[in-house]
Amino acid sequence: MKTIHVNTGRPYDILIGGGLLEQAGTRCRAALPKAKKMAVVTDSAVSPLYLERVEAGLKQAGFQTLACVVPAGEASKNPKSLSDLWEAFMAFGLTRTDAVAALGGGMVGDLAGFAAATILRGVNYVQIPTTLLAQVDSSVGGKTAIDLKAGKNLAGVFWQPSLVLMDPEVLNTLSDRDFSSGMAEVIKYGCIADRAFFDFLTAHASRVAIMETVESVLYTCCNIKRNVVEEDERDTGRRMILNFGHTIGHAFERLGNYETWTHGEAVAAGMWDAAQIGFGLGVSGGDDGGMQELKELLEAFHLPTHIARLGGGLDSRAWNAVVEAVGLDKKSAGDELTMIFLKRIGEAVAVTGKKDAVLENLAAIYGRS
Amino acid sequence: MKTIHVNTGRPYDILIGGGLLEQAGTRCRAALPKAKKMAVVTDSAVSPLYLERVEAGLKQAGFQTLACVVPAGEASKNPKSLSDLWEAFMAFGLTRTDAVAALGGGMVGDLAGFAAATILRGVNYVQIPTTLLAQVDSSVGGKTAIDLKAGKNLAGVFWQPSLVLMDPEVLNTLSDRDFSSGMAEVIKYGCIADRAFFDFLTAHASRVAIMETVESVLYTCCNIKRNVVEEDERDTGRRMILNFGHTIGHAFERLGNYETWTHGEAVAAGMWDAAQIGFGLGVSGGDDGGMQELKELLEAFHLPTHIARLGGGLDSRAWNAVVEAVGLDKKSAGDELTMIFLKRIGEAVAVTGKKDAVLENLAAIYGRS
Repeated sequence: MKTIHVNTGRPYDILIGGGLLEQAGTRCRAALPKAKKMAVVTDSAVSPLYLERVEAGLKQAGFQTLACVVPAGEASKNPKSLSDLWEAFMAFGLTRTDAVAALGGGMVGDLAGFAAATILRGVNYVQIPTTLLAQVDSSVGGKTAIDLKAGKNLAGVFWQPSLVLMDPEVLNTLSDRDFSSGMAEVIKYGCIADRAFFDFLTAHASRVAIMETVESVLYTCCNIKRNVVEEDERDTGRRMILNFGHTIGHAFERLGNYETWTHGEAVAAGMWDAAQIGFGLGVSGGDDGGMQELKELLEAFHLPTHIARLGGGLDSRAWNAVVEAVGLDKKSAGDELTMIFLKRIGEAVAVTGKKDAVLENLAAIYGRS
Repeated sequence: MKTIHVNTGRPYDILIGGGLLEQAGTRCRAALPKAKKMAVVTDSAVSPLYLERVEAGLKQAGFQTLACVVPAGEASKNPKSLSDLWEAFMAFGLTRTDAVAALGGGMVGDLAGFAAATILRGVNYVQIPTTLLAQVDSSVGGKTAIDLKAGKNLAGVFWQPSLVLMDPEVLNTLSDRDFSSGMAEVIKYGCIADRAFFDFLTAHASRVAIMETVESVLYTCCNIKRNVVEEDERDTGRRMILNFGHTIGHAFERLGNYETWTHGEAVAAGMWDAAQIGFGLGVSGGDDGGMQELKELLEAFHLPTHIARLGGGLDSRAWNAVVEAVGLDKKSAGDELTMIFLKRIGEAVAVTGKKDAVLENLAAIYGRS
């Protein structure tokens, strides 16, 4: 087992190791010695797989438990689910010293984290991420959120968990598509902060090869995220580099109504586009082969590098939707936009510039100039 | 004008002075130099009185404004109002550097503060309290909340405002009943922390006399609250003393469906009951006349000291409801309860003890033993 200590305002540990799901009870008990009750939030896809095991462990460790099962899918991350959780927690008799567990992927973690952060003005919560995406990204860093009609993740707070329990064995139940989607974020860490890790991934460019060394892959990713989050817990500076590929990726996700492409697929295409725009704007040096190796690594994990390949071309409607979505980015202000580019593989930089310049370069990529 | 600097995690100023409402624009501009947009949340009772003036000032100071008017009354402090505000903020195009203003009483401040704390994971907000209760209590300290079906203020976060603008002239439009309700909290500050202030109030025991020296009354109350909040921003220790009168007060409020008695009336009766229970439990010394002077001061401001006087007796149903509500207190755990008592007028102490002992003493007061 590997441990990462995250030194945020409220410090906590990330535990990574096979079999940790079985130990959920004792691990939660150690992190939350005063809690008597634990509300376990999960979804309809994850509950048949892991809920019984986790609840049994918690009960054995002396917790009274309540299971809150929301329908699987991003649509559950809404204000109604949030207020339903609040009422369920209170009906369960949750007090300030009790806690919430988020058992599932990013949707469950974001929703349950937000509910925990706001019930009784904040109770402790534990993240038990069951997807690769949630393990390397959303379960670490304390960002909680729900979606609004106006867009994704628009309401939420920063609220650090008390513990993150990461059992790589749960990844065996993922589909290849979901595994690949998670790999997009894994590759992102190599791109923004660790050239050697990028090379390691290139040398282990298959699901099987990754799973053979998965504990250290998870460790490397979470450790990079820890480092960035400790420096900038509230996302006002350096934390932005985690957004590499996400400005355009979010636009693609929105374009496909969050159904056509997974988050990882949209981010993969967004990373490759950002890499090319970086060249176009002169941010990236031209001496490393045009980052062709990024394209190759994404493709090795069956990830798209061009969104048109998936959706059958980017027509005017689609293009306009992307332009609009880029304008809605949280890091956008007036006619300027802050976007993350790679100076080279392993080093990211935030650049604030005119939206028009970004869009011109993107237009050229998609043949819309 | 008087200024109190509150040194919480995010520090801010409380400004107290006649005419500050007219200066809302320039004062907000000084506190929020980067904000371009300001969403002004208010209610249907306050908007006809002050909204136009405040919006005009904000516009003159260069803010684009949006008015969000919720129906007056505690019923608006619900999850639906919260999500409506979120969507309205986004439709208005609010960004992370923009802000929200809460113009109104405690309901508006709690709701708008919670919405500001959670939109885009937190934007700045300004409190412009228009009731005595909001000025001396809810606008200071960063507690935000909405009510759930299960009870009042159960969902919320701690989120400090960027500025509190307190114009005592707005108090002239309050009814005598609302003014008296605010006085319950004013008297509370004397009870828990400042014997001299208690004596001052006794010497100025009328609305007219208070209004003649209102700036310094507001200053004294907010300064006591500042002191307590700075020591214990997240309400885990000393801040509990602000709860004097509230355990039983909340039970009375609930008993009357939050309609029969105002918050201040319920707290007034709760303070007098707590004072008596304090004697019963031997917490308060017996050498200061049984705190008869507290009873006299409350009565001078037409506040109840015995809830039966208002509701026509405490029958079995009512008594059971009070017993249940005492059990629901946020500071309750298992069969124990932490309650605030007075050692003497001017000095409060938190005592954790058996719920039964508290209830026995309360039963004796209400002739139910």
